[in-house]
Amino acid sequence: MTTRVQAILTVVMVVCGGAHARSEPDPRLARAIDSVSAARLREFHDLLAAEPHVAGMPGDLRTVVRLEGLFGSFGLRVERHEIWPYLSRPVAAELQIVAPDRIDLPLNEEPVPGDALPAHPEQVMAHNAYSGSGDVTGEVVYAHYARQEDFATLAELGVEVRGRIVLARYGGNYRGFKAKFAEQAGAAGLVIFTDPADSGYMKGLPYPDGPWANDAHVQRGSIVTIGYSGDPLTPGVEATKDAGRLDPVNVPLPRIPVQPVGARAAREILSRMTGPGVPAGWQGGIGCAYRLTGGESLRVRLRVEQERRVTPTWNVLGTLVGAVHPDQMVIVGCHHDAWCCGASDPMAGMICLLETARILGELAAAGEPPARSIVFAAWGAEEHGIIGSSEWVEGRRDSLARDAVAYLNLDMAAMGPRFGSAASPSLRRVIADAARLVPQARDASGRSVYDEWIARGADPARSDLPLFGSLGGGSDHVGFYCHAGVPSAGLSGHGSDGTAYHSAYDTLAWYRKAVGEDYEPALMVARMTLATAWALANEPVVPYDPARYGAETLAHLAALSSRAGAAGLVGPIGADGIGAELAVLAGEARRFASRADAAMQDLERVLSSGGLNARRASGVHRAMMSFEQAWIDPAGIPERPWFRNLFASTDANTGYDSWVLPALRWAIEAGDRAAFADAEARYRAVFVRLNASLDELRRALE
Amino acid sequence: MTTRVQAILTVVMVVCGGAHARSEPDPRLARAIDSVSAARLREFHDLLAAEPHVAGMPGDLRTVVRLEGLFGSFGLRVERHEIWPYLSRPVAAELQIVAPDRIDLPLNEEPVPGDALPAHPEQVMAHNAYSGSGDVTGEVVYAHYARQEDFATLAELGVEVRGRIVLARYGGNYRGFKAKFAEQAGAAGLVIFTDPADSGYMKGLPYPDGPWANDAHVQRGSIVTIGYSGDPLTPGVEATKDAGRLDPVNVPLPRIPVQPVGARAAREILSRMTGPGVPAGWQGGIGCAYRLTGGESLRVRLRVEQERRVTPTWNVLGTLVGAVHPDQMVIVGCHHDAWCCGASDPMAGMICLLETARILGELAAAGEPPARSIVFAAWGAEEHGIIGSSEWVEGRRDSLARDAVAYLNLDMAAMGPRFGSAASPSLRRVIADAARLVPQARDASGRSVYDEWIARGADPARSDLPLFGSLGGGSDHVGFYCHAGVPSAGLSGHGSDGTAYHSAYDTLAWYRKAVGEDYEPALMVARMTLATAWALANEPVVPYDPARYGAETLAHLAALSSRAGAAGLVGPIGADGIGAELAVLAGEARRFASRADAAMQDLERVLSSGGLNARRASGVHRAMMSFEQAWIDPAGIPERPWFRNLFASTDANTGYDSWVLPALRWAIEAGDRAAFADAEARYRAVFVRLNASLDELRRALE
Repeated sequence: MTTRVQAILTVVMVVCGGAHARSEPDPRLARAIDSVSAARLREFHDLLAAEPHVAGMPGDLRTVVRLEGLFGSFGLRVERHEIWPYLSRPVAAELQIVAPDRIDLPLNEEPVPGDALPAHPEQVMAHNAYSGSGDVTGEVVYAHYARQEDFATLAELGVEVRGRIVLARYGGNYRGFKAKFAEQAGAAGLVIFTDPADSGYMKGLPYPDGPWANDAHVQRGSIVTIGYSGDPLTPGVEATKDAGRLDPVNVPLPRIPVQPVGARAAREILSRMTGPGVPAGWQGGIGCAYRLTGGESLRVRLRVEQERRVTPTWNVLGTLVGAVHPDQMVIVGCHHDAWCCGASDPMAGMICLLETARILGELAAAGEPPARSIVFAAWGAEEHGIIGSSEWVEGRRDSLARDAVAYLNLDMAAMGPRFGSAASPSLRRVIADAARLVPQARDASGRSVYDEWIARGADPARSDLPLFGSLGGGSDHVGFYCHAGVPSAGLSGHGSDGTAYHSAYDTLAWYRKAVGEDYEPALMVARMTLATAWALANEPVVPYDPARYGAETLAHLAALSSRAGAAGLVGPIGADGIGAELAVLAGEARRFASRADAAMQDLERVLSSGGLNARRASGVHRAMMSFEQAWIDPAGIPERPWFRNLFASTDANTGYDSWVLPALRWAIEAGDRAAFADAEARYRAVFVRLNASLDELRRALE
Repeated sequence: MTTRVQAILTVVMVVCGGAHARSEPDPRLARAIDSVSAARLREFHDLLAAEPHVAGMPGDLRTVVRLEGLFGSFGLRVERHEIWPYLSRPVAAELQIVAPDRIDLPLNEEPVPGDALPAHPEQVMAHNAYSGSGDVTGEVVYAHYARQEDFATLAELGVEVRGRIVLARYGGNYRGFKAKFAEQAGAAGLVIFTDPADSGYMKGLPYPDGPWANDAHVQRGSIVTIGYSGDPLTPGVEATKDAGRLDPVNVPLPRIPVQPVGARAAREILSRMTGPGVPAGWQGGIGCAYRLTGGESLRVRLRVEQERRVTPTWNVLGTLVGAVHPDQMVIVGCHHDAWCCGASDPMAGMICLLETARILGELAAAGEPPARSIVFAAWGAEEHGIIGSSEWVEGRRDSLARDAVAYLNLDMAAMGPRFGSAASPSLRRVIADAARLVPQARDASGRSVYDEWIARGADPARSDLPLFGSLGGGSDHVGFYCHAGVPSAGLSGHGSDGTAYHSAYDTLAWYRKAVGEDYEPALMVARMTLATAWALANEPVVPYDPARYGAETLAHLAALSSRAGAAGLVGPIGADGIGAELAVLAGEARRFASRADAAMQDLERVLSSGGLNARRASGVHRAMMSFEQAWIDPAGIPERPWFRNLFASTDANTGYDSWVLPALRWAIEAGDRAAFADAEARYRAVFVRLNASLDELRRALE
C-alpha cells in the first residue's frame, strides 16, 4: 500500500493550493496510514464481538476490562470512569393472541446455520429499554410507522386507539416517539415490528442466505424521549454514585408496555385482522392485506416486565499525552455497549478507534507523540440513551469548552466502502483534506477517499468541499457538540446492503457476510480517523474553518425561510431565498463569512511566513477555540435547555434528523411569532460573539 | 335526468362553433339519452352473468339463445351466425410439489361469503386455453414476468431454464408471450401466477372484503400467439363448417403444459425455493424472498391435459335496418363468451350494447328508424382468440370495406366512471362531440363526459379534442380495423379499484362491490354508445375527420424517429422531431392534413348551404369511405400479413400495446434498413391514396 499512499500524497502536494492545504504532508502520517492493518482490525473484532455485552449486564464489565487491556498494551494512559445511571433491564415479556384461539408468539431470534451466537446463553431477551411494565389485553390497531401524522390519520378515519394494542412498523422515526405518540393516543400497549418491506425479504435475501433481516430478526432499542441525553435522573450533572438525583416518578419515562418483535410474530397478528383496509402507503411486506383494526374477535395480550434501577457502568479512556500542549485534547470516541454481540453496532467503529490508538501509541512510544493530547474514549450505555459520553461531558463541561479541540465519533463506522461524514461546519475542511490522503476502499483505480466522495456531490457553496451531513441526534457526539459546544464530527463508511441493526444477528458472521471479509471499509475509516486526528493534534494552529458557519447559516436560513413562509411567519422571500424577517440575520452571516475568510487568509500568511511566535500562538488558539463557543447559549433551545448549541440539535419530532438553527426551527414548527422574533435576536447575538472572536483573532495576529 | 341533459345541450349549442359541431342537436337523441335505464342495465346483467358460459361449453348456447331473445324483443332482425373454430377445452390439470415432500397445490377458486358462483357446477377448471398437454417434473426457475428481457436476464445470470418448470408472474405482457418465450428457452412447463404485488393485497383489500384479487384468484386466458386473429385453422377465411382448414400440426400452437394459478399455490413453491436472490424489481408481494431457482431438492410436477377440436359456436347479430341507406351500416359489438360468469368481461359492455339496442329498437318501432343500418353484434369465442368477430369479418371483408361506416367495441366497457376511448383518428371527433351530450357519471356538478375527459388532458395537436388511445390488440375491433380497414373505436369507462379479471370471482357480486350498485358507469357508456352511433347512423355525411390521420402520422413519425435514431436507422433529427429519412413522408402527412382540413371546410359549407343533393351525397359518401381504406395494403405488415392496416396493429412483442405505423415499427425493432426503406415507400403510397380520396371528395363537391 505504500506506493499507493505516496502516489496520492504526491498528487495532494501538487493540487492543494488552498489556504489550509499543507504543502509538505508529514511523512510520518503517510507511514502511519500505511501501517493500518486488516489483520489487527479483525483481531479486535474477534475479541470484542464474541459475546453479548449490554450495559449493566455481566458482559459489560468484561468488555471494559478487555478495552483497558488493549489501551494499556498500546501505551495509553488508561482510566476507567465509573458512572451510576438509571438503567432498565428486561425481566419478562409475553405476547399472545388470546382470542379467537390462543397462540403464543415468538419474541426472540434463533440461531441459523453458520451462526450460533443468537443462542448465546447471555443473550438478553429482546426488549425496548425503559418500556413500561404491564399486562394488557385488547383489540389491535395498526398504526403504520406510529408517527404523529399516522395517529392523526387514524383519528381522521375514526379509528379508536384508546385501550387497544397498537401494532406499528419500525422506520420513519425514532422508536421512542412511536411509544410516546401511542401513549398519548391512549393505547394500552405497543408492539413494534420489523416489516420485510422496510428491511427484510422485500429488499433482498434474508440472513443467513443474505444480509437482510429475516423474519425472526427483532430490533431492540431504547424508547426514552426525555429532552436531554444521558442518565434520566441527573440531567446536566455527572451521574456519580452520590450525585443528587431526580425522583423517577418525576421523569417522563414510558408508562405503557412496549415490545419489539420480528416479522414472524407480527404476521400472526396481521394475518388475523379483519377490519377495514389501510390508506395508500400503509401496506407492508408481510404477505397479507394490512388492515386498520383487528376486529372484536381478535384479542391480543402483551405483558412486559422491566426493572429500572441505578446501575454502575463504565467509560474507558486511553490518553496519549500531548508533547507540546498536553492540556489541549482531541477526543476520538465510540461506545462499547451493545444490544447483543454488537459486531456492527458499535464494534465496526470501535475497531477503527483501536487501530488508530495502536498506531499512534506505537509512534508515541517510538518518540513521536502528538503535539496535543489525544483521548480515546470507549463509552458505556450509549444504547440506553447516550449515557456514558453525556455524563463524562457533563462532569467536565467547562474544561472541555476550553481545551477540547474536537470530538470524532466512530459509532458503527465501518459498514461499507462509501465514506461520509456529518460534521460541525468548522471541521469540514480538515476532514476533506484528510480524505485526500486516504486511499478509497475497494477502488482499483487509485482514487482517494476525497475523489470518490466529491464525485457524489460537492457543497453548493464551496465546490472543493464534498457534501457533509448536519450533526443530529443518535450517538455520543451529542454531549460534546450540542451540550458543550466542542467541534464534532462523525466519520463513517456506508454502502453495504442489508441490516442486523439491534438484533441478535448483529454478529461477526453477519458482518463478514454483509460488509465483507476484507476489512477494507474499516481500513479506510481507521485511516480517515488517523489522518483527521493527526491534523487536529499536530497542526500549529487548530485547523478550523470558522467561515463555514457563515455559509451554512445562510443556506439553512433559506431553507427555514420557506418553512417559515409556509407557516406565515415571514413575509416576502428575497432573491437570496431568505424571508424579510431574517434578512438582517442573513446579512450578519454574510458579513461574518467574508470577514472570517479574510482573517483566515491573514492567519495563513502569518503561518507561512513563520511569524507565529509563542505569544501570538497562544492568543490565536484562544480565539480559534472561541468560535464554536459563540454558538453556546446557556439558556439552551426552547423546551430542551440541555441542548445549548444554537447551531444544531436533534430533531424534536422524529429523533432521527438534525435541526439546524433549532431555536428558529422550533418557533416555526410551533407557529410562534414571539418565539420566532426571540430566536432571531438570539442568533444575531451569536454573530456578535462570532465577530468578537474574529476581532480577538485579528488582535492576536497583530 | 331530462333537465341535466337539456342543460348540457344548451351549452353545446352555444359553445360549439367548430366545423363539425351541430348547432341543432336532435331532440330525439336527447330523449333517447334520457331514457337509458339503470334498472334495465341491471336486469340484463342479472340475466347474462348468472352462470359460466365458456365458448364451446353448454352455457355458451344458452347465452346465445338469451341474446337472440333480447334482440328479438327489441324489434331487431335477429341472425345466429354459426362458426366452427378450433377450440381448446381443459380435461385435467395437476400441480404438485413432489420433493422434498409431496404437496398437492390448489388450482381453482372457492366460494366466499356472499358469492357462491365460483362453485357453480358448470364452472370450467382454471386453465390457459391452447396449453400443450403433458406431464412434467423438474426443478423450478422464477422468471419474473417472463418477458423477452426477463429470459435475457436469466441467461446473463447463468440460470438454466432448459428442462425446468418456469414460474412467472402475470403482468408486463400478454400471457401467450410468456408461454412462447418459456418454450423457446426450453422450459418443460410454465406456471403463471397472480402476484399480490400486481393485483392482490398489496394494492388493497382482497375479495370479498375488497375488490382486489384474493390468494385463490386465478387468471385464465388464451396463450395463442399466432400472427392472426380468429380461428387458428382458417386464417383469412370464414370458419364455416366446411371451410378448408390448416392441419393443426402446421399451426404453431403452444406445446409445453402451461397452467395459471393463484397466489396461494405460488406461495407454496416460492417459499420453498432455496436458490440465489432475484435482481432488483423482481421481488413480488408473496410474503417471502423471491429466488431465481428452487434448488435441486425442490421438485415440482405439472400435468395438463387439454383437448383441441373443431367446435361450433355462434355470433348473434341484431339489425335495425336503415331507412335511408340500408346497405350502409354502423356495427356495435361486444363478445358474449366468458371464462366464467363474466359479469365484467364481457357483460359490463354487453349490457350497454343491449340498452342502446333496446332504445333504438323502440324508436324504430315508433317510426323513427336510423338513416343507416345499425348492427348489434354479440361475438362468440373472443376469449379463445377474438374468433367470432374475426370470422364474421373474414366472411364479408369486401362488403364491410365498402359499407361499414364504423365499428364500436364495448368489451368490458362499464368498469368505472372515467370515460376513455381508443379510436381510429377519423372517429375521434364524432366521439368527442358525442361526449358533449352525455352527463358525466357520478358528477354532482353537472359536467358532461367531455368536460371531465378533456380536463384530464387534451390532444397536443388539437386542444379541443380529449386524449384518445391508439387501437391495439385484445378485442373484437381487431378484425374490423386491422384486417378490413373499418374505422373503429373502443368506448369504455374505467377508474374503479380492484380486479376479478378472468377469474371465477368475475361475478355480479364482485362487480357490484368493485364498480358499484348504481350502474352509473354503464349508464354513461350506454349513452356514449347511443350518441356516437346516432351521429354515425344519421348524419347526412358520415362524420369522419380524415385530417386527423395527417396529425397522428406526424406525431407517430416523431416518436418512431427517436426509436429509429437509437437503432441507427435515421440520421439527424429535425426541429420537428423527425429524422431525415422520414422527412419526405412527414411532408406528405403535413400536406395531407392541411388539404383535408380545407376539404372538410368546403364540405361543411356545402352542407350548411343545403347544397348536398343526392348525386353529390353519393359521391361524397364514396370518397369519405375511401379514406380509411387508403391505409389497407393487401400485402399486410411484415411477418403478419393478416394485419392489413398500415396505420395500426397489435404489438408484436408484448401483445398488449398497439403499434402505430407498424411496418416502420417492425423495421426499427428488427434494425432492418432495407425493410425500413420499403416501409417508408409503402407509407408514401398511403398518402398518394389519401390524396386521391381528397381529390375524389373535391370532385364530388363540385
